[in-house]
Amino acid sequence: MSIDTKKIGIIGLGLIGGSLAKDLKSRGVTDHLIGHDRDHEHQARALQLNIVQEIGSLETLLKEAEIIILAVPVNALTELLPKVLDQVENHIVIEVGSTKKKLLDLVRGHPKRQHLVSMHPMAGTEFTGPDAAIYHLFDRKCCVICDAGDSNEECRKTARQLFERVGMYVIEMESSDHDLHAAYVSHISHVTSFALAQTVLEKEKNESRIFEMASGGFSSTVRLAKSAPSMWTPIFLQNKENVLDVLDEHIHQLMYFKECLETDNQEALYRWMTDANQIKKIIK
Amino acid sequence: MSIDTKKIGIIGLGLIGGSLAKDLKSRGVTDHLIGHDRDHEHQARALQLNIVQEIGSLETLLKEAEIIILAVPVNALTELLPKVLDQVENHIVIEVGSTKKKLLDLVRGHPKRQHLVSMHPMAGTEFTGPDAAIYHLFDRKCCVICDAGDSNEECRKTARQLFERVGMYVIEMESSDHDLHAAYVSHISHVTSFALAQTVLEKEKNESRIFEMASGGFSSTVRLAKSAPSMWTPIFLQNKENVLDVLDEHIHQLMYFKECLETDNQEALYRWMTDANQIKKIIK
Repeated sequence: MSIDTKKIGIIGLGLIGGSLAKDLKSRGVTDHLIGHDRDHEHQARALQLNIVQEIGSLETLLKEAEIIILAVPVNALTELLPKVLDQVENHIVIEVGSTKKKLLDLVRGHPKRQHLVSMHPMAGTEFTGPDAAIYHLFDRKCCVICDAGDSNEECRKTARQLFERVGMYVIEMESSDHDLHAAYVSHISHVTSFALAQTVLEKEKNESRIFEMASGGFSSTVRLAKSAPSMWTPIFLQNKENVLDVLDEHIHQLMYFKECLETDNQEALYRWMTDANQIKKIIK
Repeated sequence: MSIDTKKIGIIGLGLIGGSLAKDLKSRGVTDHLIGHDRDHEHQARALQLNIVQEIGSLETLLKEAEIIILAVPVNALTELLPKVLDQVENHIVIEVGSTKKKLLDLVRGHPKRQHLVSMHPMAGTEFTGPDAAIYHLFDRKCCVICDAGDSNEECRKTARQLFERVGMYVIEMESSDHDLHAAYVSHISHVTSFALAQTVLEKEKNESRIFEMASGGFSSTVRLAKSAPSMWTPIFLQNKENVLDVLDEHIHQLMYFKECLETDNQEALYRWMTDANQIKKIIK
């Protein structure tokens, strides 16, 4: 069964939900999307930008759409998801939260759990809201399906097809593994970037000099510090154990560098950076 | 007096020296550059790539060129610069090292100090060697002249003109201020990026998963970890005090985040990230 025959509703019309809506329409998966956002200004803006073609309540979405995509911050998801599952009939529900274990533990054993496909499209920018929605955000990026075995096969196939249509490659993973890996490849980068911004803002009062001198390297390491606190506070809290583990190792590495520098240990500094260079194998 | 009439020699044919040579030629500042690199393979490669049109010894450069650009790592500079200054006659010497105070202290009072213009073109990538040399590296980037008052006015004017011709905007700063600001806008970004790479490589053994999942955010924060240890070891050592100061503040920020997360202090986490968002004012 093709996804092209199904009506799609999206709850959460920000960066992810909005970009998904744009690509689903531009790539011909659907020509009519129904949207909902608890922020009324976002709803109006999404309509104005033609990100969705109709605004409706949760009830309207459940009545009119066959696929419901939940693209809200992870704290909102823990409230919204059980409420949606309570009301589904033959719907496919796709949630695209950034952390998984706590959320999926919450709905484990729910009578409609099989209707849910838990996905993490690993794409984004540091911007938020409907105005941040862009075409091609997902091209050649990774989308993780978590605890795939808990979803009905038909639902899972449709969800996979939907994300493949916006250009993603889809892999499967247990939710606990997902959260661990996400702490490494996404969450810790945000922590260091926020901390770097704070460091500069705290100590370097001569902002015009930073502005003049800031090079590409600075901009790229600090870019993520522009990310939304409303999105990242719940991510860190929901993935607390993994984030703390990774952060401890990161602080340990910084302390090691500090000790080498304090003692002018040229050889150890050189070796430490040479080891770090191995990251070339992993990212291009 | 125009720089176009002067012959230019470049010592150090890597990323910075090589890119400078390319732009000086493509923008018509000169059609013949003489190069020198202590690495003979780099010399041969630079000639092959037409980065320079002639290879010569230091003596040849001093004989044939009127402007000598020193684009070698800062530890090599501390040896090379006094040696070059000892031999200059009517030359203009431009050094483009990443740290300044230690180097300029070393040649303070040298009888030929006025022939030297100390500049830091704040541009780069994580790559090295002649193959890393690219066109337009310096476009719209900042170039800092340090301790400008110690240079002869004519030399300074010519050096400024040269960097403006490759697209840079030039500002002046005391060397001690430069090193402090550079620690904030460049050096600490490299420290955190190296440490982030080490963290991931150390703890996350499932490299294929990182490879699949690594998003744009991870890549941009860890990109600088590919930088050359041979360049960065001496930078950190020569700017040790400033780097340690900034690093202490950075670790302090990470410890604060850690404490907030450990105690589930949602409000403090939110506020801390909101404060970090202020970096938007400084970088676009």
